[in-house]
Amino acid sequence: MNRRILITIEYKGSAYCGWQIQKGGVSVQQVLTECLEKICGHKINLCGSGRTDSGVHAMAQYAHFDCNYDAIPDDKFPQCANALLPADIKVLCSRRVESSFHARFDAKKKIYLYKMYYGGTASPIREGLFTYIPFELDTEKMNTACGYITGRQDFSAFCASGSSVKDFVREIYSVAVTQIQKGFYTEYYFEICGSGFLRNMVRIIAGTLIEIGRGKMQPDCMRQIISGKMRINAGYTAPPQGLYLMDVIY
Amino acid sequence: MNRRILITIEYKGSAYCGWQIQKGGVSVQQVLTECLEKICGHKINLCGSGRTDSGVHAMAQYAHFDCNYDAIPDDKFPQCANALLPADIKVLCSRRVESSFHARFDAKKKIYLYKMYYGGTASPIREGLFTYIPFELDTEKMNTACGYITGRQDFSAFCASGSSVKDFVREIYSVAVTQIQKGFYTEYYFEICGSGFLRNMVRIIAGTLIEIGRGKMQPDCMRQIISGKMRINAGYTAPPQGLYLMDVIY
Repeated sequence: MNRRILITIEYKGSAYCGWQIQKGGVSVQQVLTECLEKICGHKINLCGSGRTDSGVHAMAQYAHFDCNYDAIPDDKFPQCANALLPADIKVLCSRRVESSFHARFDAKKKIYLYKMYYGGTASPIREGLFTYIPFELDTEKMNTACGYITGRQDFSAFCASGSSVKDFVREIYSVAVTQIQKGFYTEYYFEICGSGFLRNMVRIIAGTLIEIGRGKMQPDCMRQIISGKMRINAGYTAPPQGLYLMDVIY
Repeated sequence: MNRRILITIEYKGSAYCGWQIQKGGVSVQQVLTECLEKICGHKINLCGSGRTDSGVHAMAQYAHFDCNYDAIPDDKFPQCANALLPADIKVLCSRRVESSFHARFDAKKKIYLYKMYYGGTASPIREGLFTYIPFELDTEKMNTACGYITGRQDFSAFCASGSSVKDFVREIYSVAVTQIQKGFYTEYYFEICGSGFLRNMVRIIAGTLIEIGRGKMQPDCMRQIISGKMRINAGYTAPPQGLYLMDVIY
């Protein structure tokens, strides 16, 4: 019996070169593939919902593969895989999907969260899990700028160079920045939900919002950056360690 | 000029044998002492507000030392120390205190937070920062039990064997358990504020509350455990990685 299984995966990306298998580094996809091949007893092709960069985390990444081995019930892959997986990668759940289902092409929405904080020094507890910002951010200005991001637009300005995609149009459903005071630090959360994201798009939007939040750019620059479609107008690419793939909606 | 400096320290305890200097492991106190001796140019005696166990974190630990070196302003020790300290230990602030001030004896209140979560598997993102509980907890029952902990009482039942203290009376000002649903997990937060804590006291109370929360003990067992003054009646010592020293009030 051949069945297609969809797994939900949580990982801490700090120790990996990202999701995608590549030379010169250990990827999350590689560790998972090797683990599932041991369990299934045959080669598999693990297809994720999309790549995540080195250092980026996932609260819920999704991937499908075809399994010819019958002995594991559809929903029991977590129990089998987690015994073999390292502590920083775990399978949260598994279910059978149609053989036509595709983890990447059938993704309707993706939700990302970018965690940042400001304080007098880099926080030991937040190391690797948040991005440290050495200045306070004005979240009101950032949210004004967020207002220009929603909707169906061409996001060429937020696409890293070297990307092979031809279509730069994506739809952003919601985007907002919140802040919370925690002891010596101010934490900032930037959450974005969209139909899909270009290469480094979330990190470049985060970097642009940081420039706006610290007063280096005005909020309505965001509108001009989008309409100008030039990567050079946007802000820097914010570091990966604050970024989380939160969920994928199918 | 001899001045007494009080520093506030944040650390991630995962890589250390605890606060206290001891043979056979690297302690937070040792790393900080060596760093401050480099800065001051003379031997120092760094006296903390109290010990924390191996793997326990601090959002705000306090320690004092005497400094004969004049060139560093009272409030500039963070800038000098943090350049030399590893990423998992940072000085948050410093100030001059009276030469009679003592970080341990002058502590009026201490606040600890114990972070736990339940889910189908151990969470990669929470690894080392939360304690994984493989069953759901009834926070209503736990809070009923918490009601018996407050007040000035003899807490012998929650003191690890081998402790050298003679006086087991401490005052607990507040204690509560809260829960929050986050994706695939339920997070539980147990916060306790007291005049001081016996050896492993917070972790043994946490372990007892976990037994109550999962239904292995009834909430009013807490009253009998306290009045019985026997360690054997209380629950297990909950693991260190979910515990945070949140603040010390002087």
